[in-house]
Amino acid sequence: MPIDFRIETASKLARAGRLLTPHGEIETPVFMPVGTAATVKGMPQDILEALGVQILLGNTYHLYLRPGVETVCKFGGLHGFMAWPRAILTDSGGFQVFSLNELRKVTEEGVTFRSHLDGSSHFFNPESSMAAQIGLGADIIMAFDECTEYPADRARTKASMELTLRWAERSKKYFEEHKHEVPWRSNVHVGTAAPGCPSERSSPGLDDGVREDGQKSSLRPDGQPRAAVPTCSEKHQSLFGIVQGGMDLEVRKESAERTVEIGFPGYAIGGLSVGEPRERTREVVAATLKHLPKDKPRYLMGVGTPEEIVEYASFGVDMMDCVLPTRAARHGLLFTSEGKISIKQARYAQDPAPLDANCACRVCQRYSRAYLRHLYASNEVLAQVLNTLHNLSFYLDTMRRVRHSIRLGEESRSLASLWSQPLP
Amino acid sequence: MPIDFRIETASKLARAGRLLTPHGEIETPVFMPVGTAATVKGMPQDILEALGVQILLGNTYHLYLRPGVETVCKFGGLHGFMAWPRAILTDSGGFQVFSLNELRKVTEEGVTFRSHLDGSSHFFNPESSMAAQIGLGADIIMAFDECTEYPADRARTKASMELTLRWAERSKKYFEEHKHEVPWRSNVHVGTAAPGCPSERSSPGLDDGVREDGQKSSLRPDGQPRAAVPTCSEKHQSLFGIVQGGMDLEVRKESAERTVEIGFPGYAIGGLSVGEPRERTREVVAATLKHLPKDKPRYLMGVGTPEEIVEYASFGVDMMDCVLPTRAARHGLLFTSEGKISIKQARYAQDPAPLDANCACRVCQRYSRAYLRHLYASNEVLAQVLNTLHNLSFYLDTMRRVRHSIRLGEESRSLASLWSQPLP
Repeated sequence: MPIDFRIETASKLARAGRLLTPHGEIETPVFMPVGTAATVKGMPQDILEALGVQILLGNTYHLYLRPGVETVCKFGGLHGFMAWPRAILTDSGGFQVFSLNELRKVTEEGVTFRSHLDGSSHFFNPESSMAAQIGLGADIIMAFDECTEYPADRARTKASMELTLRWAERSKKYFEEHKHEVPWRSNVHVGTAAPGCPSERSSPGLDDGVREDGQKSSLRPDGQPRAAVPTCSEKHQSLFGIVQGGMDLEVRKESAERTVEIGFPGYAIGGLSVGEPRERTREVVAATLKHLPKDKPRYLMGVGTPEEIVEYASFGVDMMDCVLPTRAARHGLLFTSEGKISIKQARYAQDPAPLDANCACRVCQRYSRAYLRHLYASNEVLAQVLNTLHNLSFYLDTMRRVRHSIRLGEESRSLASLWSQPLP
Repeated sequence: MPIDFRIETASKLARAGRLLTPHGEIETPVFMPVGTAATVKGMPQDILEALGVQILLGNTYHLYLRPGVETVCKFGGLHGFMAWPRAILTDSGGFQVFSLNELRKVTEEGVTFRSHLDGSSHFFNPESSMAAQIGLGADIIMAFDECTEYPADRARTKASMELTLRWAERSKKYFEEHKHEVPWRSNVHVGTAAPGCPSERSSPGLDDGVREDGQKSSLRPDGQPRAAVPTCSEKHQSLFGIVQGGMDLEVRKESAERTVEIGFPGYAIGGLSVGEPRERTREVVAATLKHLPKDKPRYLMGVGTPEEIVEYASFGVDMMDCVLPTRAARHGLLFTSEGKISIKQARYAQDPAPLDANCACRVCQRYSRAYLRHLYASNEVLAQVLNTLHNLSFYLDTMRRVRHSIRLGEESRSLASLWSQPLP
């Protein structure tokens, strides 16, 4: 098995454990901040490290368009390119392309879509998504799937699920044949093309050739390597399968069982948070989890609010990601142990209190609400930096409390119950 | 004397020393980053501290408009409001109002101007500028002056200089009568109005009343004060005079002599970098410095490039400020020991080298030019954060090298000569 998942404590359905990746260990349940374009918007990597981020998410669709897989691959993958030595997960591009709505066309072979940047036409299929994700070099990569739109009737939901299953088989086949091409496995220096680095936007196959043009040295003038990214020649990436099936519990069950039959080292639940009521999401997650193996990591994609991540961890979800903490921060919406705060409100203009008196992050330790409100009202970039820092800290701290609570064998279905007690 | 300036080493015209302010010691010659609206754009205060920033500049015009002097004053001044425990200098608002061009009208009494934010009408005079700067509570504040436009004939230059001299006397008089009202001198808690805190935008006098509306406690729920801003009841602000006189060396001489006659603990050279050729700036600075007392700090306002700050330090200038490192960073223009780099250029798209191989900043230690180029091309906020961090680090490191070189008694008129040797 390329990925080692150890459940250390289980408390009812919830589990606390460790996921060992080629770029470090992740304590689960884990919240993964989203770094769409090889950056968690506004956050220097050393701040993410200090926050205790153990794994980041990157978006294949965005990175494929800019800076391109070839460029990232030449730097030893995303780890080298963005100077992030810890674990990374990439999505398959399927959901991003789904979000383009009118700009895409789905066939059995794959998806044709237009770039949101310049309108240029592109094609993704299971093979090209795998090639891109191998070139990007994340520790965990995702099968290429179709995210079923909401609402959808049973026939459409089932047909979409079948397509996702066929694509899952193709994803796995391509991955197994090419996983040795991951750039950090080649022990090549950063800045030198790995044997498997694809030519820019080649698809679906990979270009075997090493680029001929002048490669600069990966070494700094003092002879030291530029980035401390461990090479892990013994290890390779892990490909996770994705369960689809819309809001239909029967189809979800079938999708889960048949995806498990194909066999992956971890399983994701996709196709949620697409417009359905929250109660429905909860029901589908709970029902789907029953059909996933207990000894494999379970990843709920694109979820959720602080309350939701606490609840889904109690259901037995091990991994979650969401743009909410970072996106809300940019709109001045801040999460605290006493509820949401919209920092743009005039009521905070002279408020000397910290954002959250229970929060130990460096924003809450140093700045007043009045200052944060001033930065936001003045459209200052520091508003985004500090707001993002706080929201991420709040999410990560929430997950830390969830893990602690599972280890203590406590019931922790609510955010309020978690934050009412200090961490040891 | 409210400010203690000690010259420790002089080498030809250059001097290295220490300026002791109520909020800490400053090693001179010093470069002061500009924090217009109570923030150095994109930089958390702890990063500025780690960079070794000892003094920041704030802009009275901007802070007066937003968040308003009253709000800042209630937090114990800028130090409390922006959670910056080290030294701060504010300008008088004169230059900012000068920059508004058609939006202002100058009379003997003062300047009427329109806000660049909402077009509302406001009035600044020496008394209201002092009142605002006392409320903002910077360690060093500036006399209210008229920045003479360029070009200007001798009659106009002289008349403008005379106005600045009369305003300097009025500034000093008001300051001497009201300097005890600085909010951090009152030993009041952050968040409580100091006795001298003005009502919002009152001018020219101060409102004596403490605001009646509910003040929140300055204490965090755990009983600790919110910000570690030292109160310095023994000390107060220092008001510096400003020499004007356009590009006319005779008028500059007279301005310097008569400003010194009024008597200030430090002197600035204003009215430069207003469109004149660089050679002319150099000439005016050199000529003006001759007429300023050797034992007082000399501050050259709004200057300059890395080459210029090195050169002016060699002329005997002790303090400089400029928006260049921060503004250029936002446009992808980066200063390095080997010259300027425009990071937006496609040539850096796959360049694994650091921005500056000789720079020890955390950007150059961690990231490649390719990554910085990607961030800039993708319009990512992290581009501004990292670019600003590097440029400030470069400026501060340059000044560190200048000080070191003065202490060694070395001639250091060029940037290249400074950066060709490593710091000890």
